[in-house]
Amino acid sequence: MDEPTKFLLGEDAIPTHWINLAGELPGEPLPPLSPRTGEPAGPDDLTPIFPMGLIAQEVSTEPEIAIPDPVRDAYKLWRPTPLHRARRLEQALGTRARIFYKYEGGSPAGSHKPNTAVPQAYENAQAGIEKLSTETGAGQWGSSLAFACSLFGLGCEVFMVGSSYDQKPYRRSMMQTWGASVTRSPSERTAAGRSQAGHPTGSLGIAISEAVEVAAGDPACNYALGSVLNHVLLHQTVIGQEAIAQLELAGAGRPDVIVGCVGGGSNFAGLVFPFLRRGDVCRIVAAEPAACPTLTRGVYSYDYGDTVGMTPLMPMYTLGHGFVPPPVHAGGLRYHGDAPMVCALVRSGRVEARAYKQNETFEAAVRFARAEGIIPAPEPAHAIRAVIEEASDGEEKTILFGLCGHGNFDLAAYDAYLSGAMEDPEFSDADLEAALAELPEAPAIA
Amino acid sequence: MDEPTKFLLGEDAIPTHWINLAGELPGEPLPPLSPRTGEPAGPDDLTPIFPMGLIAQEVSTEPEIAIPDPVRDAYKLWRPTPLHRARRLEQALGTRARIFYKYEGGSPAGSHKPNTAVPQAYENAQAGIEKLSTETGAGQWGSSLAFACSLFGLGCEVFMVGSSYDQKPYRRSMMQTWGASVTRSPSERTAAGRSQAGHPTGSLGIAISEAVEVAAGDPACNYALGSVLNHVLLHQTVIGQEAIAQLELAGAGRPDVIVGCVGGGSNFAGLVFPFLRRGDVCRIVAAEPAACPTLTRGVYSYDYGDTVGMTPLMPMYTLGHGFVPPPVHAGGLRYHGDAPMVCALVRSGRVEARAYKQNETFEAAVRFARAEGIIPAPEPAHAIRAVIEEASDGEEKTILFGLCGHGNFDLAAYDAYLSGAMEDPEFSDADLEAALAELPEAPAIA
Repeated sequence: MDEPTKFLLGEDAIPTHWINLAGELPGEPLPPLSPRTGEPAGPDDLTPIFPMGLIAQEVSTEPEIAIPDPVRDAYKLWRPTPLHRARRLEQALGTRARIFYKYEGGSPAGSHKPNTAVPQAYENAQAGIEKLSTETGAGQWGSSLAFACSLFGLGCEVFMVGSSYDQKPYRRSMMQTWGASVTRSPSERTAAGRSQAGHPTGSLGIAISEAVEVAAGDPACNYALGSVLNHVLLHQTVIGQEAIAQLELAGAGRPDVIVGCVGGGSNFAGLVFPFLRRGDVCRIVAAEPAACPTLTRGVYSYDYGDTVGMTPLMPMYTLGHGFVPPPVHAGGLRYHGDAPMVCALVRSGRVEARAYKQNETFEAAVRFARAEGIIPAPEPAHAIRAVIEEASDGEEKTILFGLCGHGNFDLAAYDAYLSGAMEDPEFSDADLEAALAELPEAPAIA
Repeated sequence: MDEPTKFLLGEDAIPTHWINLAGELPGEPLPPLSPRTGEPAGPDDLTPIFPMGLIAQEVSTEPEIAIPDPVRDAYKLWRPTPLHRARRLEQALGTRARIFYKYEGGSPAGSHKPNTAVPQAYENAQAGIEKLSTETGAGQWGSSLAFACSLFGLGCEVFMVGSSYDQKPYRRSMMQTWGASVTRSPSERTAAGRSQAGHPTGSLGIAISEAVEVAAGDPACNYALGSVLNHVLLHQTVIGQEAIAQLELAGAGRPDVIVGCVGGGSNFAGLVFPFLRRGDVCRIVAAEPAACPTLTRGVYSYDYGDTVGMTPLMPMYTLGHGFVPPPVHAGGLRYHGDAPMVCALVRSGRVEARAYKQNETFEAAVRFARAEGIIPAPEPAHAIRAVIEEASDGEEKTILFGLCGHGNFDLAAYDAYLSGAMEDPEFSDADLEAALAELPEAPAIA
């Protein structure tokens, strides 16, 4: 009874620096390439839509970057987040493993995304920018940016993928409550949107194009991205730094295995990078959906970050920028590529990637909810699935995983699972071949 | 920048006892009356549907009741909850007041309700009961009980008001994820339900009747109630005890004003009772909706706790047990009566009640969300409205209020407010007169 369940830190333990792994990744550093010239992209390729403060972070190889005081102060609204020992799950599994999870769902938006939305809003406000534009699919990123903009007095314009706009009015209302304007994409607001008028559902690719167009055409407006880029991963490293302090508090020693889900890679990187910086030799597992198996079946190549080819070409595992994943419920994991920094770790063998089907993932999520109370978002449910595998081999070990968000807005998915109506879309070799056929011409990567 | 925002306690600070105010309320103690005989109701009136452990708590006048270890252990999943200093709201208001809020929305179900669902499930499991039945309207109580039952291996059958069942599938999925069975009420499961077959929307009264009938007819099944009763209020006193410790941590001294919303009264009592026990002389404000103004316009009388007259008669402020409040969005505050213990405090003048209209309440909620991040549930938004009033008189003072739940499942209400479509239903004198005409015959209260 007296055994602790949660490990909490005071606000003074919010990290003072982000951890930047850019200077010490395995393999040759590979620069992003300009989509116009095919030459290495520099800061100038980014200035029309990002402030210099963030560009400096994007290209920095400094080992640490100080967190500005107003950002730390805003982090106090929900950080440090708790580290839980999953005692009841351990009991339910009958495992000898000790399972810890770092829970990011207590933020106002319900996930880890505000960790980067806040510093992005801050740097833009410092640069005199008055408004940020962005895209959102299911709404997790859009609502986090709306929240962050409300803290720093910035306007926020969110282009929401049409099908989500129609089906998820609650996420839209959340963004509006924080003062953002939400536009159904494709819209009449932009040339990109007008060119797609009549598109029945919209797509993330179209929404990105609209958000970038608005930012590029308005000096007072910049664009913000919620994953993939170096500075986004950087901001998330508060997660792993806190977890290190909390595992010490728990007297747990160093973890033997760290597990996170990967969509764009920012939550995963935020948890894992501080352990890599410390030199931990633990195994590291990246969990992704079998229906969008970027790390497990993609090719390592230069590809665009977006669907329509406006962004710099990035070196990463990719299923091809034209690939449209099937509509699985883990919307945050439906991305054709992954963060270049995470991909470099997978390619070097330092990180092991595993893919899970939807039904087996939700089976794990329901098991977790009935033991631990928290209903997980579908994205971290992939990590839970991997954790249950890890905990089922009879070994004594310490497992840490990232529970990056709650599932309050994903209950339709639970309904589908519980009623037996959930599908397990196939991703065939033919699908992969077709998607990869459209890879852009770019230097081969050795 | 270095000023603290949250005040956190470790798990060892979870209270060891609940605080029972039953022995020291102002005025004559008034017993509940049996609905069959009109005589004072005793434990025997409750044994068919409640376990002795809870009945003992219900009738106890002991000043403190020990919290069983397994309950404290389950509380660790989310308790102690944080106390926040609302610095950003203070800045936005330009007030000289210091505003603190105790946030209960971080529980798995998203509100204070699990504080009582857990000990209720525990006592029933201890008594050898295998299943609990209950009713739920919007779903907040039903999901809390489903969660608690999952922790103690109990079955859980929830009768959900038909209109909510149809309109709020997400709350239903939440209960099912925790393993509960959810039945649309009126149902074919019970005689009460069959007698109402064809009722288009159902009602809380019908759902209560169905849940009680199931419990009364099955020795292995008991019934659970989420507010109003003494033992429910008792369980919630962990809230105020933690808040006292946290205000000391904050160096804030004793609060000048404490504010809570009142629906059945349990969240309010849980926050306030420990301060009353300590002998604080602060002002205490109970906030309720103008569309269901039990404390501000009801009469103090014996009345049934439910709509159909199956429960004991309780001494309380009531709008008449036949009163059906208009469909305002604060579903948790749509109750014709209030907890007898809270009513006694209002009647004695110790607690001041105020009623607020829906639109002014949501105006306060949006203001809060844009400053503090958290989107409040509509119920505590009434408290926020009162807090903003209190903070706007230019006085220097310390205000504490209860933020008893988040609004993740109430975003349709925010949408209605933001789009200008929210109504402010009137509650006319004629409405009141008609509702009170059906008060049962019972001893007059001096």
